Amino acid sequence: MSASAYLLERAWVGGAVRDDVLVEIEGGRFTRVSAVSSQNPHDTPGPDGVSRGVRPAGPRRLPGLTLPGLANCHSHAFHRALRGRTQRGRGTFWTWRDQMYDVAARLDPDTYFGLARATYREMAAAGITTVGEFHYLHHQPDGTPYDDPNAMGRALVAAAAEAGVRIALLDTCYLSSGFGRPVEGAQVRYSDRSAAAWADRVAQLNDDDRTRIGAAIHSVRAVPREELPTVVAAAAGRPLHAHLSEQVAENDACLATYGVTPTGLLHDAGALGPLTTVVHATHLTGADLMHLGGPATRACFCPTTERDLGDGIGPGRALQQAGAVLTLGSDSHAVIDLFEEMRALEMDERLATQQRGHWAAAELLEAATAHASLGFDDAGAIAVGQRADLVTLDTSTVRTAGTGADENTAAFAATAADVVHVVADGAVVFRRGDEADVGRELDAAIGRIHP
Amino acid sequence: MSASAYLLERAWVGGAVRDDVLVEIEGGRFTRVSAVSSQNPHDTPGPDGVSRGVRPAGPRRLPGLTLPGLANCHSHAFHRALRGRTQRGRGTFWTWRDQMYDVAARLDPDTYFGLARATYREMAAAGITTVGEFHYLHHQPDGTPYDDPNAMGRALVAAAAEAGVRIALLDTCYLSSGFGRPVEGAQVRYSDRSAAAWADRVAQLNDDDRTRIGAAIHSVRAVPREELPTVVAAAAGRPLHAHLSEQVAENDACLATYGVTPTGLLHDAGALGPLTTVVHATHLTGADLMHLGGPATRACFCPTTERDLGDGIGPGRALQQAGAVLTLGSDSHAVIDLFEEMRALEMDERLATQQRGHWAAAELLEAATAHASLGFDDAGAIAVGQRADLVTLDTSTVRTAGTGADENTAAFAATAADVVHVVADGAVVFRRGDEADVGRELDAAIGRIHP
Repeated sequence: MSASAYLLERAWVGGAVRDDVLVEIEGGRFTRVSAVSSQNPHDTPGPDGVSRGVRPAGPRRLPGLTLPGLANCHSHAFHRALRGRTQRGRGTFWTWRDQMYDVAARLDPDTYFGLARATYREMAAAGITTVGEFHYLHHQPDGTPYDDPNAMGRALVAAAAEAGVRIALLDTCYLSSGFGRPVEGAQVRYSDRSAAAWADRVAQLNDDDRTRIGAAIHSVRAVPREELPTVVAAAAGRPLHAHLSEQVAENDACLATYGVTPTGLLHDAGALGPLTTVVHATHLTGADLMHLGGPATRACFCPTTERDLGDGIGPGRALQQAGAVLTLGSDSHAVIDLFEEMRALEMDERLATQQRGHWAAAELLEAATAHASLGFDDAGAIAVGQRADLVTLDTSTVRTAGTGADENTAAFAATAADVVHVVADGAVVFRRGDEADVGRELDAAIGRIHP
Repeated sequence: MSASAYLLERAWVGGAVRDDVLVEIEGGRFTRVSAVSSQNPHDTPGPDGVSRGVRPAGPRRLPGLTLPGLANCHSHAFHRALRGRTQRGRGTFWTWRDQMYDVAARLDPDTYFGLARATYREMAAAGITTVGEFHYLHHQPDGTPYDDPNAMGRALVAAAAEAGVRIALLDTCYLSSGFGRPVEGAQVRYSDRSAAAWADRVAQLNDDDRTRIGAAIHSVRAVPREELPTVVAAAAGRPLHAHLSEQVAENDACLATYGVTPTGLLHDAGALGPLTTVVHATHLTGADLMHLGGPATRACFCPTTERDLGDGIGPGRALQQAGAVLTLGSDSHAVIDLFEEMRALEMDERLATQQRGHWAAAELLEAATAHASLGFDDAGAIAVGQRADLVTLDTSTVRTAGTGADENTAAFAATAADVVHVVADGAVVFRRGDEADVGRELDAAIGRIHP
């Protein structure tokens, strides 16, 4: 990767919006971040320790407000083919799941790659530079492994690489349809039959500079209690994610089977902690909050999906006060817009409490840049030594004009449509004008699945 | 207005999406709507009774999905200056109101005109062709009338005309700060001192082809019970709107003062009925539902504002089942996007009930095109004789691609950013590429208020 430099009109640096920030990039990382502004004097020295306040002639000027890259901590790429389709008709989470399984049953490594690449390009256009892909479509529809048993997972990694987005492949263990019930229908292709076989398969996958291999427990429905320790052991030192308490029915069944809540079950299996992210965490007890918060477990909220699936409003602030760390994901991709997810975290908590101002914009930005939840501890800030991600918002669109061009513009006015330039690991992965191409690619990829 | 014609690739006509719809427009109205499609044969004869299935060479082709014009049934134009500003910090509805009053105190007819024109242009860009402006900034800050006592209202009418949007000026009676309390602070400029004086002032305003003068009861807080009959009488035959039960505190104070709910008070005053629109209707009793639904009162939900202000989730479906008619508004303009309001009506009901599928896309489109709530009974459908409004969505953007290009795309995938062409009363009021101009106008207008 070659060297480059940008002069950012305004940028979110060191917890504040600063004017005229010069960044220099080499090898995909920031080598210099230097803000010189009459209002907010600030200068981070470069690796040589020298702080140089003079603007070179070379840097490309980026007008607008530039943010660190966003982290989409929970994605099922193939759900993008369901947007505008599963919303019709009545039903519950469970009838939605039947529609989702119907698409899951039709994918092969080739169509999965095409759909994922288009979906990740939509993410890049929305300012997302790392995706956490919660991946469980492992085998052929009848359960037979592909010649390469990781063909489907490798398709996702390749798709992310072509879209220019980093990926945490959260390879998901899925062994049972429900408590004590074998997999059935589309689920047959999700199952490795045992956690040990799942771990053996995952061991054949390797990290690279832009890929982290992580693990996932699909849910306490899908991984029997006795198999959990094998997953936890295999995940040691890697990101471990799990769907948790999205639906009341799952809590009830878990209590009936094991006599503990899903959170209690994960806690007893040693699955909670700072490398673990629980997804949704909507319906929790007071004890659950303590189990999650005590070891600083991450909790990934997906508010637009949680609206769409009628999950309910999770206890975001209570989790954070208990010690958990909030992250955000677009999950079902009914919407791919982390600005909307940020806003929704605050807005839905307002609906639940009839009080305003639970989350400051800076806290929402922190939740939207939680790359560490995906194994990238060196991303999420515009600072020397960090991975060089830059997401630039136009602050004079019909949506953002007149809103102050600060962090509140990002959290409370902007949408993904206001993103005009995206750099990931030093490379430009989206610029205004690319949208039509991405739309055409989505149309083509989804057209292969819904002919 | 001259004649024009469009060939719509797909359009919402007669309750279905049809291909290849030819529309002809004269004098601002549809004179022909003719859909010829192999899948959905449909042909509405023109005024001469002759149905002509041949495509003339002349019409301009509009690719994408074309909808009728949208009606924004509840607007406070000046709140646009608060976007991204009042969201910071903690508080309640009532602390938000203090920030809102601060802007209200600073406007004059000139700055109000500029801000409203820019805001209405943002609306036009979002596919809105009629705005219902709930207007109460009547007088000078010290309460003295302007030389023209309707200078502020006329500024709004002129702003809408320049933006190309029809307006219902819902001139609002506001007489007291709370039950038994005189107006104070910024409210002084809202008050005409009596309902009779309010009615005299409003009588000096006139309808024109694109303007309807309507009336509004700000709330049961702001109009004492004994003044209500005067407002109701003056509003006879015109749209009458009222904020209703947005906050529990208002219900409690009304019950304590009068021994009835706000809905009961409006019912007793004869203020409910099909020409009346109650706004929010969030916290209702079973008896309230009957009072509203019985005479087919309209209820305007403003979900993105109700999230922002922590109002709560209103009983949308229960109101509709009781006989009320749902409409939508962007209210505080934290967001101006009726696609998001449509979706939010359904999504927030899902959050409240943990069930999916309360509102079909066709019902949501009906709620978003309720021009009759604003006194324009001849708008809201692509049909011969109706006002010629056309809102075209690009169905291959990153958001809409692959979603089926039907009414579910509009209700569950599109955003205002996907609107690419808008016709109101036969005239083009927005086309893709105009956004940057609108953004600059918003920046300039808001810059005069927050220097």
